[in-house]
Amino acid sequence: MTSSDRTAPLGAAPFGLIGLGTMGRNLALNLVDHGTALVVWERDPALAETARAALPASTVWADGPAALAAALPAPRAILLMVTAGPAVDAVIDALSPALSPGDAIIDGGNADARDTARRQAALAGTGIELIGLGVSGGEEGARFGPALMAGGDAATWERVAPALTAIAARTPDGSPCCARLGAGAAGHFVKTVHNGIEYAVMQALAEAYDLMRHGLGMAPDAIGDVFGRWNHGPLESYLVEIAADVVRTRDDDGTALLDKVVDRAGQKGTGRWASLAALDYGVPAATIAEAVFARAVSARGDERAVLATERAAVTGLDLADLEAAVRAATVAAFVQGFDLIAAADVAEGWSVDRVAVAQVWRAGCILRAALLDRLADAARRVPPDALLLQAPALAAEMREALPGLRRTVAAAALGGYAVPAMGSALAWVDGMTRERVPADFLQGLRDRFGAHRFERTDQPGSFHADWRGA
Amino acid sequence: MTSSDRTAPLGAAPFGLIGLGTMGRNLALNLVDHGTALVVWERDPALAETARAALPASTVWADGPAALAAALPAPRAILLMVTAGPAVDAVIDALSPALSPGDAIIDGGNADARDTARRQAALAGTGIELIGLGVSGGEEGARFGPALMAGGDAATWERVAPALTAIAARTPDGSPCCARLGAGAAGHFVKTVHNGIEYAVMQALAEAYDLMRHGLGMAPDAIGDVFGRWNHGPLESYLVEIAADVVRTRDDDGTALLDKVVDRAGQKGTGRWASLAALDYGVPAATIAEAVFARAVSARGDERAVLATERAAVTGLDLADLEAAVRAATVAAFVQGFDLIAAADVAEGWSVDRVAVAQVWRAGCILRAALLDRLADAARRVPPDALLLQAPALAAEMREALPGLRRTVAAAALGGYAVPAMGSALAWVDGMTRERVPADFLQGLRDRFGAHRFERTDQPGSFHADWRGA
Repeated sequence: MTSSDRTAPLGAAPFGLIGLGTMGRNLALNLVDHGTALVVWERDPALAETARAALPASTVWADGPAALAAALPAPRAILLMVTAGPAVDAVIDALSPALSPGDAIIDGGNADARDTARRQAALAGTGIELIGLGVSGGEEGARFGPALMAGGDAATWERVAPALTAIAARTPDGSPCCARLGAGAAGHFVKTVHNGIEYAVMQALAEAYDLMRHGLGMAPDAIGDVFGRWNHGPLESYLVEIAADVVRTRDDDGTALLDKVVDRAGQKGTGRWASLAALDYGVPAATIAEAVFARAVSARGDERAVLATERAAVTGLDLADLEAAVRAATVAAFVQGFDLIAAADVAEGWSVDRVAVAQVWRAGCILRAALLDRLADAARRVPPDALLLQAPALAAEMREALPGLRRTVAAAALGGYAVPAMGSALAWVDGMTRERVPADFLQGLRDRFGAHRFERTDQPGSFHADWRGA
Repeated sequence: MTSSDRTAPLGAAPFGLIGLGTMGRNLALNLVDHGTALVVWERDPALAETARAALPASTVWADGPAALAAALPAPRAILLMVTAGPAVDAVIDALSPALSPGDAIIDGGNADARDTARRQAALAGTGIELIGLGVSGGEEGARFGPALMAGGDAATWERVAPALTAIAARTPDGSPCCARLGAGAAGHFVKTVHNGIEYAVMQALAEAYDLMRHGLGMAPDAIGDVFGRWNHGPLESYLVEIAADVVRTRDDDGTALLDKVVDRAGQKGTGRWASLAALDYGVPAATIAEAVFARAVSARGDERAVLATERAAVTGLDLADLEAAVRAATVAAFVQGFDLIAAADVAEGWSVDRVAVAQVWRAGCILRAALLDRLADAARRVPPDALLLQAPALAAEMREALPGLRRTVAAAALGGYAVPAMGSALAWVDGMTRERVPADFLQGLRDRFGAHRFERTDQPGSFHADWRGA
């Protein structure tokens, strides 16, 4: 930490901060480092003690929400870092009577965007503004530079932005990864989609790992070398970088640690929320949903053991194709996610700036990747609600990677290796780049069995036919 | 209609029936044919007039819910055939004050099971029972034999069952396709899953049609012949039967009518509900979700036209493989659906009898198929919550069909034809039959970037590692 990092204005207003678990404590240290004084409260004595040892003596400790509010000058800015769910409602309920019009509550938890919208609606008319703030980057990000995705009232954000912008990650060109991405719950929704894409990209990498490790019989170190090389090409990203480390990590006995890890992946719900949103908004973000379902398959270990069959080596797969497959699946997952953001934006009226989304994700968060520069560029070149694949450079990138994805999916299908993310990404590309899809056949069946009617390509109106093969 | 079809006891109590749209009117005629007298109400004068012309003069016409209740002897049985959603709540609210403990309301609409559970909870303590009744088979089924899927109080069901059993479809061996499948909202949930499977099977058939029509360049009549042959083998089913008719149907100019049908498939929401339930209960019913997403792709015609690329003929695909692919995908879709029912049952405590589900679906509904006999047999042989693939005969059927599915998915992948349902079914089989899936890799990444911890295969507890490639 050097003094040049202290970008917050000297003498800026203090922040309130409620919740000093790992994330809250690290954000607190980050804020203090950047010149923001704090008034804090933590309900749990053990967490409070840990935080007290870490925070400077100048920190003001309140003994509850009302005291915290009383210790802050109006207009207040109070950051909540409490567990998403009912605890957030409880804190807001306890705080609100002590607040004044113009005050800002900033919820930095992993809230469901629907909850944020509900809370914002409940506060409407009180003059108290709720900013929904997606925070990404884990403990390390919180301490030294998270990606911050805000949604809510613009004027309120202007007031609290300097302190938060100061602590955020910086892109390679020095821009802060912190922005108001739109009105209402836009920030928490973008964070949910971030996590959904994260599920999909991780699943595609897991499929590549599986194909190398078991399909091609490669040793962990050799796989680590492959991920390391990928990280110096178009796939350059945090997830590929740590994949190289993770597969190389050895247990005390010298064997690959991954082989000792139970093959059951938990989830905190955000991937599921993103998939639910895709279904509710009617967006074909299938690769995100397949990644969630792959985790559900992983949870069925007992049943899988009963049904298990042997796999032979996979044939007809080469590593250049596999890199292209991961690249195409990654682009697909991101484009689906941006498509989902656009559809939610149309429905909710948040006015999301997708260029800003790509820039905020460029550093500090799990999805940080060189690809985000290409996605930001694509978002600049297409209408706000159009699929990013309409941008020529991104379309060319997908075209270049697609043959490798095709050959990888085919080899995996023939060899018995499940590739739900890669296969779904391919089906999505092949559907979205097809002028005519066989939904005409679906409509014919539906009109036949349920008189659901159909439209015609050659005349307006709605039709019903006999469909008895005449 | 012969007198031997009149299976209801003579002099049975009359039914109330509210809602005389197409489905309500046809169910009314069916009930009357089988000896159940009716007291009816329809709010819309035009629909009432149509129904009055069709129903016998002995039908009693009420002028509202309260009058309808007053005209029925207690304990009452009142079937609602009104549009799912708020209209159901409105009718229940209007009816309830006029009912007595022991009366039964039977909601025959396509209700969301969560709504049914909410309504049952609201009526708890009143002595009024709500039976949620899934009705499948469309207009024709309603008139001459629907599949009826009931959920709710067992004693109440016993009382209303004879009249409903009398009008239901019959399996080839003569059993009625009408049963109480469990407590609470089990009936509506099973109907939702029925529709979800329907989406998936239709999508798999659409992919086969697309591959034949565009990938292999086959003429519609030849494709009709293929579907016709499939309908005399293991794929024997209503959907394959009508597929043959639908593809052969010609427009007035002699060309295939399907080619004039807009390739955009609508949905009434039940496929989405099934997918949402799969995500909420953590069940990998990915093939159902992919079918919903394929309809979302179909809705993006303008964007697809912008992105469209040409397809060459598909190579390496033969029709026996394609039949096997449809068969494997169909089995996968059904097994996923039964898996979803089991998971919901474990969570909700409905005590669903999955054998009864397969039997109820055996005739009258869109999913009627010879396969349901094999599924009923599988459900008899495995524990109530186990995957049906654990039954040896069904596992053998999947093993037999799987090589064709593999080759079809590979050919489609290489040729550029989207097969989201087939590809997802294959990924699901290859995941569920794998003793170890690469979720170990996911857990390694998650522990690396977020300290999410992991379990070990060789010792109990929860662990965190450094994962820096040491």
